[in-house]
Amino acid sequence: MEIPPLKLNRLSLYLRCLRSLEDDGVERISSLELAQRFHLSAAQIRKDLAQFGEFGIRGVGYEVGALIESLTRLLGLERFHPLIIVGMGNLGSALAASVGFNSGSFQVVAGVDNDPEKIGSRVADVLIEDARDMAAVVRRTEAEIGVLTVPAAAAQSNYDGLVDAGVRAVLNFAPTRLKLAPGVRSKDVDLRIDLEEMGYFLTRSKRPVR
Amino acid sequence: MEIPPLKLNRLSLYLRCLRSLEDDGVERISSLELAQRFHLSAAQIRKDLAQFGEFGIRGVGYEVGALIESLTRLLGLERFHPLIIVGMGNLGSALAASVGFNSGSFQVVAGVDNDPEKIGSRVADVLIEDARDMAAVVRRTEAEIGVLTVPAAAAQSNYDGLVDAGVRAVLNFAPTRLKLAPGVRSKDVDLRIDLEEMGYFLTRSKRPVR
Repeated sequence: MEIPPLKLNRLSLYLRCLRSLEDDGVERISSLELAQRFHLSAAQIRKDLAQFGEFGIRGVGYEVGALIESLTRLLGLERFHPLIIVGMGNLGSALAASVGFNSGSFQVVAGVDNDPEKIGSRVADVLIEDARDMAAVVRRTEAEIGVLTVPAAAAQSNYDGLVDAGVRAVLNFAPTRLKLAPGVRSKDVDLRIDLEEMGYFLTRSKRPVR
Repeated sequence: MEIPPLKLNRLSLYLRCLRSLEDDGVERISSLELAQRFHLSAAQIRKDLAQFGEFGIRGVGYEVGALIESLTRLLGLERFHPLIIVGMGNLGSALAASVGFNSGSFQVVAGVDNDPEKIGSRVADVLIEDARDMAAVVRRTEAEIGVLTVPAAAAQSNYDGLVDAGVRAVLNFAPTRLKLAPGVRSKDVDLRIDLEEMGYFLTRSKRPVR
């Protein structure tokens, strides 16, 4: 009973909303209030959260603390997930310095690049090491998730290197289709494709071009 | 007959694959070859491309050039889509300098920030201007798509500012849910949520932790 990615992504979003409510001292919230406060769908919330053993009671709502605990456990966020960034260019460096990749159960513990001018320098707290030493760096840091921010032409060989070194998941930002290894979870994040989605809707939008 | 985003995203991907085939001088390709070459599903390709008036002929395949032209028109990529980046921190700067945001029909034509130390400097070809002048910058540059790379707490006010200034689509990288304006196409890109998806699968993965 594996949860499909789109639903998982909504659960991540609910968890974030619930945490911000907890910070505000809110102890209970209904699906309707949750929906209104965060511009979500109440029906979708009820459907998504039903299978975790409905904590909600009509008119009373969800117990914020209990639901946070359940979602955290479900998403595997009570464990530490160290990250290695392969390709410390603009995007890799931005991610290495970002709060999202360095909070809660995630932390960038290593970065590698093949540019001699970058090797040995630091971005935020991350020392940039030689990409040729990737296997050793993964072993030493016990990096579990690889973040691939290299040009398309270098993506497959670096992906293969990460897999051989033992990482268990890869987030691929290179705009190319990888031949994936069995048993390693991978996800493509292609920001250009998100832009093209906007392009499609713009050609059909009724909002006048100024 | 609006195409759902996930399908659109696959069409973008096919278009990219077809262009790389065209660069290699390939004039015709079957769904099976296309699938094998780019690690895609042949059945999905046939299904996705069927509605554009099947160019494929069993045993002959798709006409690469004709299909590129159809997909380019469908996605609105024969038009120019200027971008403005709001928040020229690490991520905003990385995107301003990226090939994906500065090729084909997309180009970053403006960047704004509220940090006096950044205002007046350049990232790649983009001059960073004062965020208080956002409306004037959008009008002058005719930016059509806003890219929101500000902290969560600043996202809604900057989104509202972009909409008021006349942008027609917003790609939101801030980890927060926005109250959306009608008629403006918006998409959240939440890289933290992609990481959490990996976290979920890692707790269930059979690949041993070293």
